[in-house]
Amino acid sequence: MDAAQEAQKREAFRQAVVNTLERRLFYISSFKIYRGVAGLYDYGPPGCAVKANVLAFWRQHFVLEENMLEVDCPCVTPEVVLKASGHVEKFTDLMVKDEKTGTCYRADHLLKDYCKEKLEKDTNLSAEKTAELKHVLAMLDDFSAEELGAKIKGYGITAPDTKNALSDPYPFNLMFQTSIGPSGISPGYMRPETAQGIFVNFKDLYYYNGNKLPFAAAQIGQAFRNEISPRQGLLRVREFTLAEIEHFVDPDDKSHPKFSEVSKLEFLMFPREDQVSGRQARRIPIGEAVSQGIVNNETLGYFIGRVYLFLSQLGIDKDRLRFRQHLANEMAHYAADCWDAEIECSYGWIECVGIADRSAYDLRAHTDKSGVALVAQEKFSEPREVEKLIITPVKKELGLAFKGNQKMVVEALEAMGEKEAMGMKADLEVKGEAEFHVCTLDKVVTIKKNMVSISKEIKKEHQRVFTPSVIEPSFGIGRIIYCLYEHSFYTRANKDGDEQLNVFRFPPLVAPIKCTVFPLVQNQQYEEVAKKIAKSLTAVGISYKIDITGTSIGKRYARTDELGVPLAITVDSTTSVTVRERDSKQQIRVNVDEVASLVKSVTDGVSTWNDILWKYPTHSS
Amino acid sequence: MDAAQEAQKREAFRQAVVNTLERRLFYISSFKIYRGVAGLYDYGPPGCAVKANVLAFWRQHFVLEENMLEVDCPCVTPEVVLKASGHVEKFTDLMVKDEKTGTCYRADHLLKDYCKEKLEKDTNLSAEKTAELKHVLAMLDDFSAEELGAKIKGYGITAPDTKNALSDPYPFNLMFQTSIGPSGISPGYMRPETAQGIFVNFKDLYYYNGNKLPFAAAQIGQAFRNEISPRQGLLRVREFTLAEIEHFVDPDDKSHPKFSEVSKLEFLMFPREDQVSGRQARRIPIGEAVSQGIVNNETLGYFIGRVYLFLSQLGIDKDRLRFRQHLANEMAHYAADCWDAEIECSYGWIECVGIADRSAYDLRAHTDKSGVALVAQEKFSEPREVEKLIITPVKKELGLAFKGNQKMVVEALEAMGEKEAMGMKADLEVKGEAEFHVCTLDKVVTIKKNMVSISKEIKKEHQRVFTPSVIEPSFGIGRIIYCLYEHSFYTRANKDGDEQLNVFRFPPLVAPIKCTVFPLVQNQQYEEVAKKIAKSLTAVGISYKIDITGTSIGKRYARTDELGVPLAITVDSTTSVTVRERDSKQQIRVNVDEVASLVKSVTDGVSTWNDILWKYPTHSS
Repeated sequence: MDAAQEAQKREAFRQAVVNTLERRLFYISSFKIYRGVAGLYDYGPPGCAVKANVLAFWRQHFVLEENMLEVDCPCVTPEVVLKASGHVEKFTDLMVKDEKTGTCYRADHLLKDYCKEKLEKDTNLSAEKTAELKHVLAMLDDFSAEELGAKIKGYGITAPDTKNALSDPYPFNLMFQTSIGPSGISPGYMRPETAQGIFVNFKDLYYYNGNKLPFAAAQIGQAFRNEISPRQGLLRVREFTLAEIEHFVDPDDKSHPKFSEVSKLEFLMFPREDQVSGRQARRIPIGEAVSQGIVNNETLGYFIGRVYLFLSQLGIDKDRLRFRQHLANEMAHYAADCWDAEIECSYGWIECVGIADRSAYDLRAHTDKSGVALVAQEKFSEPREVEKLIITPVKKELGLAFKGNQKMVVEALEAMGEKEAMGMKADLEVKGEAEFHVCTLDKVVTIKKNMVSISKEIKKEHQRVFTPSVIEPSFGIGRIIYCLYEHSFYTRANKDGDEQLNVFRFPPLVAPIKCTVFPLVQNQQYEEVAKKIAKSLTAVGISYKIDITGTSIGKRYARTDELGVPLAITVDSTTSVTVRERDSKQQIRVNVDEVASLVKSVTDGVSTWNDILWKYPTHSS
Repeated sequence: MDAAQEAQKREAFRQAVVNTLERRLFYISSFKIYRGVAGLYDYGPPGCAVKANVLAFWRQHFVLEENMLEVDCPCVTPEVVLKASGHVEKFTDLMVKDEKTGTCYRADHLLKDYCKEKLEKDTNLSAEKTAELKHVLAMLDDFSAEELGAKIKGYGITAPDTKNALSDPYPFNLMFQTSIGPSGISPGYMRPETAQGIFVNFKDLYYYNGNKLPFAAAQIGQAFRNEISPRQGLLRVREFTLAEIEHFVDPDDKSHPKFSEVSKLEFLMFPREDQVSGRQARRIPIGEAVSQGIVNNETLGYFIGRVYLFLSQLGIDKDRLRFRQHLANEMAHYAADCWDAEIECSYGWIECVGIADRSAYDLRAHTDKSGVALVAQEKFSEPREVEKLIITPVKKELGLAFKGNQKMVVEALEAMGEKEAMGMKADLEVKGEAEFHVCTLDKVVTIKKNMVSISKEIKKEHQRVFTPSVIEPSFGIGRIIYCLYEHSFYTRANKDGDEQLNVFRFPPLVAPIKCTVFPLVQNQQYEEVAKKIAKSLTAVGISYKIDITGTSIGKRYARTDELGVPLAITVDSTTSVTVRERDSKQQIRVNVDEVASLVKSVTDGVSTWNDILWKYPTHSS
């Protein structure tokens, strides 16, 4: 199969999945009767149930099993918080406008589409040109506005809908802006992530945890991104559910007490080195990845392992799940290491979970902006002698030499790290002066011996005060669910072989409804039995659906398979019933009184269907 | 105790509750390190767990037990939807501004505060003046902007903080406004309620339900109201969680098949008549309230009963819960009947759940605005003969007579109800012409006999097409939780009698943590046992907290009582442990291997503590 055929096949598969999802109301285009809004989707009843199941499992797997501190913060966020986090300044995409109609496009998308189409369809492309276009695609995320603009002009790219000329690219902030209170003078935004709500609460949460590290806080909630032109269906939306963990840890000790529980897990990893040298993702035990230094530390490794367990238990295909390390140019300057859990679907490899060691960046940013120290203390059992760097600027001399700039020079001197300070000390002792770059003035000044004293002193300290590092696993719940839909979907022929039927092979954990109850024919006796079973299912907390339509049992099975319901109970006598498993289509006979507990034991994962098969007579329909 | 002492006692009680809630991080003022934002609160770890428990129980009690269709729609909502619902035009509060500083106040709040203070503190008030102020308080919700302004001026009310003069009252829309997409030309709002997301999906949901009525859809999610000046702590906030049900029903048949299950329930009801005539709320069986016509219909009554069960099972005190019927002036013009579940707390009687029969209003509004018919069909088993009104405007004659206004006259004629049309028919027959008021022209025109034919015909109809009525129970989850905190809180003396200790008597269903595990002293043996118990608790899905600090066991009990943890397990041997119940402080001895299942059976409600007491030896510490 060539690339074009592959693409066609993927497209057809996606259409089949999406048609089923839409027809059965797994999701609905929001505000459809008003022609909808791009990038906004509703979850209909089965989608809503799947989402609730995924979130309940997330809470069990992460919050409960790891004793995390869950919080729930508002979506409306005042500007000051998002200025500190950098979102007001930097949370932008580059946009171009159709110069006549004003329609907006993401600049990188247009360039990407152009390159991809050329590469796919232009058969006369020279080797040189091909290499150039591939290079552009690889560099897409690194281009500045000017570079993007130059490429767009250079290739003669125009507005896709009208072929009109395009404006130069300019940044568009992706946050939904609003105003808090009636005065109109307090700008706010709908949060673009849930993490900031945790960071600003660090002090209280640290106290709640008995002033002990490490600990993790978690939050599930809505986040908002005012995408320029959303596409890729459920994968790029303007409002979505995030589940985020912020694990706070001593930067000097990123070991994890439970690492041994995951270290033997083996799954597809795609380290930076392998990507750069054109190799494929490969299976590496996570223990090895940490010990070889591929993954920066145990805590990061532990979470990668836990994320793997979470996704695979949900039903994500292990062969289409990989952990890809960020390239140096992808990673924020402050990050120590970053891995994305990527899931392969018809749109390609999609980032669904980001697992980043963000070092002390976030807590420092909020400490600086708020003036409240977001730090941890380690009390020493006995005082320790610590060598301390002491930098004492002589303000009088600096004032004489630098006048109005004195303050900035003083601050720059005080901010020197150990290496720089000791270098200056040596220069001052040898040459009597030293060249010194003052960032805030953006120039090099000359510091004389009488302007600063630099020394090291031994001090007794009773505790160490430090800003914790934060390891952040961040889950895009909607993306995970969409990939799960694709990985769970298959079709099979009906009995007569003249029609393809759709099935979602959801594990019981995820299935929107755990079982259906079908009275075989419409009569009061069977309906009474169905109601009795329904009551016993409710009592044990199992969600079910009764279908009392007179439709043929085959059609009712087909309908329920399409919702991914694992078990169907057909009431065909008043004492015992037929239970049918979705994927094998095997059927067994079970007493009416036993059926609820049987369904519960299978859907809770206490028994497998195979365990059950041994115990009950099979039934052939 | 006089009114002032009562007020003081209430205030002191509230302070004790709120202090405990804040200290134990049930909630946190959002963005505290940046001095917070009025009306925004975070749920900290125990608050978050309580909220998750309340929502899980809501889902079980309403969505699962009633087979409702749950949906999950975005918060960001395009303007057109909220224009149709009336929110853009009417979702306002009246505001006044300090004329010098620009500070904003809710006009009715200032007037209310003024009247209340006068009534409480002015001892020289004449009987006449007292009656006047009481009347103002009663009428507060009915005043127009002009009336409110006149009262504020008349009483000489000034800005509370500065004593500056105030502006005239003017309406302020309470929705957070934003803009969807990058163009700036698509206004949107953060939804003020979740209901609209359900209404716009009516067609799909009706289809999903097999085109059958009645059915209910439900949604849990965030809603937003940009309050002018939030007060009353957690009761009036700018972002909150709503849980809403829209039960769609045939307007000609509002019976409910399960009404008999609730009809015997008896609780405090406060019908309109009793309020108007100054009587007290009284206990009425809901069955009687419906049969006597106090409650409009069975479906409304059924939901009132279900709401009562929901709130009382959560731990709301039945004696401080009442269902108050809206007065005629409180109710929207389209509503058939409306009852609020009000809970009494230190702020007075607080509306926590609204249960309204909104008739066909919402579906009609969206039908009109979107042009998509949100209707239901009832197929007749055999065709029925129906008398139908036929109005046929003669466009040619109308065009000659009304020229450019022809279209509006035609539409007005076609829209006539039966009574009006038959009146016109009679006039035309007798007088040859009829006066006719055309709303859209705002004038009366003369219709001649040749301009319209009006008749009644007998037609055979195969189905009936109608707009369903909607019964809407709408739950303010944050308000319910706050009242639950107050109703669950009490203090008791410690052993030495020198200190008051705080306790939340949460039912296990609600408790943020189901049990704590305390190794009696710090040693490895006991900690191993504690870990073993922890593991078995996780296995049965019970949330717990281990406290291995060396603090005295009494202090640890006090800490855990303050979080409302029902059971504490003290590890004081390697084979058996002490289990202590929070409210009775009774203790029993249980084998290590049995303790997890015992805790589960109590917290799941399978056994009560009293059942358990019989089976195990008691222990006195």
